[in-house]
Amino acid sequence: MAEDIKQAALDYHQYPVPGKLSVTITKPTATARDLSLAYSPGVAEPCREIAKDPEAAYRYTGKGNLVAVISDGSAILGLGNLGPLASKPVMEGKGLLFKRFAGINSVDVEVESESPQAFIDTVARIANTYGGINLEDIKAPECFEIERQLIERCSIPVFHDDQHGTAIVTAAGLLNALELQGKDIADAKIVCLGAGAAATACMKLIIACGAQRENIFVLDRNGVIHSGRTDLNQFKAMFAIDTDKRNLDDAIDGADVFIGVSGPDLLSAEQLAKMAANPIVFACSNPDPEINPELARATRDDLIMATGRSDYPNQVNNVLGFPFIFRGALDVRATKINEEMKVAAVHALKDLAKEEAPADVVAAYGGAPLSFGKEYILPKPMDSRLLNVVSAAVARAAVDSGVALLPYPDFYPLENLDHFGA
Amino acid sequence: MAEDIKQAALDYHQYPVPGKLSVTITKPTATARDLSLAYSPGVAEPCREIAKDPEAAYRYTGKGNLVAVISDGSAILGLGNLGPLASKPVMEGKGLLFKRFAGINSVDVEVESESPQAFIDTVARIANTYGGINLEDIKAPECFEIERQLIERCSIPVFHDDQHGTAIVTAAGLLNALELQGKDIADAKIVCLGAGAAATACMKLIIACGAQRENIFVLDRNGVIHSGRTDLNQFKAMFAIDTDKRNLDDAIDGADVFIGVSGPDLLSAEQLAKMAANPIVFACSNPDPEINPELARATRDDLIMATGRSDYPNQVNNVLGFPFIFRGALDVRATKINEEMKVAAVHALKDLAKEEAPADVVAAYGGAPLSFGKEYILPKPMDSRLLNVVSAAVARAAVDSGVALLPYPDFYPLENLDHFGA
Repeated sequence: MAEDIKQAALDYHQYPVPGKLSVTITKPTATARDLSLAYSPGVAEPCREIAKDPEAAYRYTGKGNLVAVISDGSAILGLGNLGPLASKPVMEGKGLLFKRFAGINSVDVEVESESPQAFIDTVARIANTYGGINLEDIKAPECFEIERQLIERCSIPVFHDDQHGTAIVTAAGLLNALELQGKDIADAKIVCLGAGAAATACMKLIIACGAQRENIFVLDRNGVIHSGRTDLNQFKAMFAIDTDKRNLDDAIDGADVFIGVSGPDLLSAEQLAKMAANPIVFACSNPDPEINPELARATRDDLIMATGRSDYPNQVNNVLGFPFIFRGALDVRATKINEEMKVAAVHALKDLAKEEAPADVVAAYGGAPLSFGKEYILPKPMDSRLLNVVSAAVARAAVDSGVALLPYPDFYPLENLDHFGA
Repeated sequence: MAEDIKQAALDYHQYPVPGKLSVTITKPTATARDLSLAYSPGVAEPCREIAKDPEAAYRYTGKGNLVAVISDGSAILGLGNLGPLASKPVMEGKGLLFKRFAGINSVDVEVESESPQAFIDTVARIANTYGGINLEDIKAPECFEIERQLIERCSIPVFHDDQHGTAIVTAAGLLNALELQGKDIADAKIVCLGAGAAATACMKLIIACGAQRENIFVLDRNGVIHSGRTDLNQFKAMFAIDTDKRNLDDAIDGADVFIGVSGPDLLSAEQLAKMAANPIVFACSNPDPEINPELARATRDDLIMATGRSDYPNQVNNVLGFPFIFRGALDVRATKINEEMKVAAVHALKDLAKEEAPADVVAAYGGAPLSFGKEYILPKPMDSRLLNVVSAAVARAAVDSGVALLPYPDFYPLENLDHFGA
C-alpha cells in the first residue's frame, strides 16, 4: 500500500469519531410515555411473549436482521495471527459492508480463546442473540472444526466467509472464464496453490459445480498433495490424488486453470508460459497477487486473469457474496446456509455478469462499458442489481431445499433496502 | 399493566421494523475508494497499528464508545428467570437508553450458560470487543461472583446495574429524603425488605454514605437477617446483626426508613403506621410497589415516598444513573467503576435535585414546578442537565481515585451529545 493510502485509511477510521459504525434508535423516544413502552414497564410484554414462544423474538427484537461477525484474529487478511483486538477494524468493516449492501445490522465480536473448543463454546452460548453468524479470519485447520461444531449446535446460519464466500465468488468467475475460453469444467486441469481455508472451500465448491477431483492438483508448502504423502491432516487428505507430480513446476505444465490463494509472486512467468492454450489465472493473494497482472498479460495474451484487487479487471471480492447470501437466508429464516444455497449464489453471480451493467454502475467504474468478456467475468461490487438477484436466488434455494422456516418473501423482488428500515 | 399499554408496547416493538435499534455507518461509502479505505486493502493499517499498540483500538474502532449489555435472563425485571432470549427486549431497551441519554453505542449479548463459571468465561473472552460491560438481570447470589470475577479479569469497567445503578439512585433519593425529614443517616433506623442483588448493593452503598450497620434490618423470605441464622450465604451474612427482631412487624416498629426491593403489597398500612415520625418509604417493587402510594399517603401524611413508577412522584429510576456513569467512565477510560465513582454519582444526583428544574423539564412532566421537596427528591429522567452533571462527577472521581487512563476531558462540560457523533 502506498503511504498516502495508509494515512488516508487511518484518518478514515479515526475522524470525526473513531470507528465506522454507530448504533441508532429506530423508535420514538421523545416522551416519558415513549420510554415506558421502550423500557419499563412496557418492555415486559415482549419478554413474556418470547418466553412463551421463542419465535416472537423475530417480531419484537432486532434478532432477525442482526448478524454477528466473529473472529479470534488468528488469520487477519494477509496479515496473519495478530490476535482478536487487532481484527476489530476488519470485523467492523464487514459490518459496514453488510449494512451498505444488504441493510443488515451487524455487530462484531472478538473472541480471546485459549483453544478452538473454548471459541466454539463461547460463540455457541451467545449465538441466540443473533439471526446469523459470519465467522471471519480464523486460521485453518481450526476453522473447519469450529464451523462444523457451530453449525451443529446453532439453529441459525453459521457461515465462514473466508471459506464459502471466497469459494462462491471464485466459482462464479471461474465458470464464466471457462465458458469464455471454450473449456469444459469436467475436463479442466486445475492447479490450486494454497491449501488453507479458502483454497479447500474453493476446490470443494468447484467439484460441486462439475470439476473432477482427479483433475485438481492442490499444493501446500510441501508441494503437490498426493496419495503418497504422510503429513496430511484430514482436510488436506481429501484432495490427495495418485500422481507423480510433486511441485508447482510439474503441476502447472499444461494446466487450464491456476487458482492462487497463497502469497505474492509465487507463480513465475515461466510457469505461466507452460500452461495450456487459453489459460485462466485467478491470482487472489491480497494485496499482492501470485503473479503481477502486467507481467501475466505480457506473458500470455490468450489469458483470462482475475485478482483480489479493485484496481485490475475481474476482482474476486467477497462483498459480491456474503451480504446477499445472508440477506436471502435471513429473509426466509433459513436454519443454515447449505450447498444448494451456495450453488444458487454461484449461478446468480455468473448469470448477472452476462447482463450488460446499467449506466450508474458503468459510471462508478470509470465509464467504459462493462460487458461480459475476458475483462468482465464477475459483476462489480457497486452493482445494485446484486441485492435482488443474489438474495432472491439464495432465498429460493433455501425454500426449495427445505431449510427455510418462512415462505419465499412476499416483499421480494428487492429494489432497495427500504423494507429493512435501512 | 393495562391491556392498551400491553398492546401499545408490543406494537412499539414490532413496527415499522422489529426491535428498537439499528446499526448505521458513520463514514463515507459512496465510492470504490471509500470502500477500499473502510475494508480491504486500507483496513490493514489500523489492524497493524492495534497489533503494535492495543490502545490504538480506541482511535480506530468504535470500542471506546461501545458498551455491551449482557444477561443470562435469570432475573428479568419483575418477571423472574425467563431465560436469555426472553431478556433481549430489555437488553435492547437498555441500549436505547444508553444512546438516548448518553450517546453511547450499546449492543446486547444474551448468554445461554450451563453454569455461572461458563457465563463468566464467555463474557471474559469477548470483553475486549467493548469499552465497558453492563451486566443486567442476573439473579442473586450468582450475580455477585459473576461480577467479582469479571471485574478482576477485565481491564474495562464491568458494572451490574441492578445492583449498583439501583443503589446509586436510591442512595441519592434517600439522602435528600433524610434531609427533608430532619433525620441523620448515622442514626436512622433502616428496614430493607428484600435481600437480593439490588437490596444488598443499596445497603452497602448506604453504609458507605454514613448509615450504621447495626441500624439496618435486612429481611429475606425467612425474616430478619440476624446473627443467629444458620441459613445465610456469605452475601446475606454480611448484614447479620445481633437482634431479637424476627419479622417485618418487629423490624418496622419505630423505623425511620423502609426500603422495599421485594414484591407487591408486602408492607401493610398497619405496619406503616408503626414507623417513626416523618418516615421514609422507598417501595421500589415494579410495577406494583410494596404498598400502594395512595394508601400510604392516606395512612401517614408525614411521609416521604418513592417508588419505581413514573406515574407517581419520586421515581427511583436507574436511567438517572447508568448512562452517565458509563459516559464519565468511558470519557476518562476508567479501568473500573469504583466506590469513589459511585459515591460521586450519588452526590451529583442528590445535589441536582436541589436546583430548580429548567422550563423544558417542567413542561415534559405536566407543567407543575419541580422544586426540591417531599415530592421532588430526585431529578427527572428527561432532565438534560444529568448528562453533564453526573458524567462530570464520575469522570472527576475516576481521575482523582487513580483508575482513569486519560485526564479529565477537555471536551467537558458536555452540553449535548454532539461530541460523540450521536
